[in-house]
Amino acid sequence: MRYAVVGSGAVGGLYGGMLAHHGQDVHFLLRSDFDHVAANGLRIDSIKGDFVLPKPNIYQRAEDMPRCDVIIVALKSTNNAMLAETLPKIIAEDGVVLTLQNGLDVEADSVSAVPGHGVLGGCCFLCSNKVGPGHIHHLDYGRIVFGGYEFVGRHDQIREIGQRIASEMTDAGIDVQWTDDLAAARWRKLMWNVPFNGLSVVLDASTDAIIGCPASRTLADRIINEVYAGAALCGVSIEEGAIEKTMRHTETMVPYDSSMRLDFLNGRPMEVDAIFGSPLRAVERRIAELTAESSEKRAHPMPSVKMLREQLQFLDSRPAMASNLSG
Amino acid sequence: MRYAVVGSGAVGGLYGGMLAHHGQDVHFLLRSDFDHVAANGLRIDSIKGDFVLPKPNIYQRAEDMPRCDVIIVALKSTNNAMLAETLPKIIAEDGVVLTLQNGLDVEADSVSAVPGHGVLGGCCFLCSNKVGPGHIHHLDYGRIVFGGYEFVGRHDQIREIGQRIASEMTDAGIDVQWTDDLAAARWRKLMWNVPFNGLSVVLDASTDAIIGCPASRTLADRIINEVYAGAALCGVSIEEGAIEKTMRHTETMVPYDSSMRLDFLNGRPMEVDAIFGSPLRAVERRIAELTAESSEKRAHPMPSVKMLREQLQFLDSRPAMASNLSG
Repeated sequence: MRYAVVGSGAVGGLYGGMLAHHGQDVHFLLRSDFDHVAANGLRIDSIKGDFVLPKPNIYQRAEDMPRCDVIIVALKSTNNAMLAETLPKIIAEDGVVLTLQNGLDVEADSVSAVPGHGVLGGCCFLCSNKVGPGHIHHLDYGRIVFGGYEFVGRHDQIREIGQRIASEMTDAGIDVQWTDDLAAARWRKLMWNVPFNGLSVVLDASTDAIIGCPASRTLADRIINEVYAGAALCGVSIEEGAIEKTMRHTETMVPYDSSMRLDFLNGRPMEVDAIFGSPLRAVERRIAELTAESSEKRAHPMPSVKMLREQLQFLDSRPAMASNLSG
Repeated sequence: MRYAVVGSGAVGGLYGGMLAHHGQDVHFLLRSDFDHVAANGLRIDSIKGDFVLPKPNIYQRAEDMPRCDVIIVALKSTNNAMLAETLPKIIAEDGVVLTLQNGLDVEADSVSAVPGHGVLGGCCFLCSNKVGPGHIHHLDYGRIVFGGYEFVGRHDQIREIGQRIASEMTDAGIDVQWTDDLAAARWRKLMWNVPFNGLSVVLDASTDAIIGCPASRTLADRIINEVYAGAALCGVSIEEGAIEKTMRHTETMVPYDSSMRLDFLNGRPMEVDAIFGSPLRAVERRIAELTAESSEKRAHPMPSVKMLREQLQFLDSRPAMASNLSG
């Protein structure tokens, strides 16, 4: 299969790079990094082994790319506006999109960009940062859990192509796992992203500092519990013990600056809507339904998540302040 | 009456300075600012008129001070540990303490330092900053609402001396108001301190920025409502319209850096316990009582306040980070 990577950062650069390094046919759409990668190649420093792709297939414009069978969308979701123009130009006739992005229903933008095509979604459980142009630093973990996006249908066909992608990724050394319950995987990922992306920005701290202080640890724990409760309210069941497991993984993780924190420190827009807005809208819709059904008023199941979103929306509206902080 | 001022910063320096400027007998206990004030006097830049006290009565040690009838305690409550040693040395036989500090029950430390003496408490509604050694900048508002600390008793005697203090302060141009309900004044002040001290630190923002952004304004409004509900739960009734009035005052206020924000930016301890811990303990005690009475479980009435405290506790534990921010 021929792969395209749209968004060659900490996630797309790493997984696309690993596929290409293993000999798969991978085509990267680059923007600001194009000249650097053309001159120096794509460099991956990974706990699974460092490598450089000296001459990857790179493009500045979607119209110059070949049609691809699998388009990995690993953009920041704040850049999703470009998908409507880009995806139709590079998707093969039976091609599918695999969105490796944070949030709930982030696949919707891909679905509307290439209607009729299969869309899969994946959650990446990894610590990886883009540390410079064409230079990815993969620090810890690395699993992709992916599955068919439920609102597209055609389950068998999507499942089949999903298994093929999984097999080729596994061959390339990627820890990948198919799921028939993408929504559960998405909520599962939010259980980490919501507390640790959010608090890392608001508290200007890396994960080890948040976990290391009793007050912030208590808060992170309460936020994880809220996300878990939000998922349950939305009818998504997550395995027992996930809350404890999330805390434990974060404890044993390398000290880590979340992507949201790096965005904030560098004055870039943050994925506030994808990571906070989407689950809040989901639970608020569900509360409205339940209230309409029983006319019984319900308390908001995620008050801390709501407050964290408001704090992040404030900080996101002040890029000038943000870039001061990085000095 | 002879006045002592313990804590000659934005509040003590201003009000003590105004009393002395008007000819009252005022004695200031200074620490780090002693040499500067000895050489240059105490300088007040105020919207009510600038002045300098060239030779105020200043002391480095409590034992050198005369016994005073009214001891104005305007320390940061994080320094209250010094009261036990200081107050007994400077209080006159029938002297009283007037604590102009933030929080609930901050008077308790003064009560235990000079048991048997009357203790009054006051809330200051003003924008004032210490901008340098012996240099106070009074920017806006200025009212003191003060009354007898309820747990001391002897209401008539305290009321009488309170009226005398009020009268002398009024003569000195201070906007002062006696109250028979100190608890209500304390909670009323917390309705400003909790949202705007807290958010100014966590969001690294002055009041105008917090009020100016819809997300943070919504959050501030919700926090004010929580404090109002917390007061009601504790049996303290605050006038109708106080929520709206607090927001309106903050809107029309000069852009202001709260004392807590200045403490944070300068790497000093913040009054997290006085401003956040004390009302949270009060409502949590009350919830425990109500739950014991009716065995009905109650939701926490101040979830956002609780979360803000946790965030501030985290930030308060990292002075090194804090001083980086001020750069």
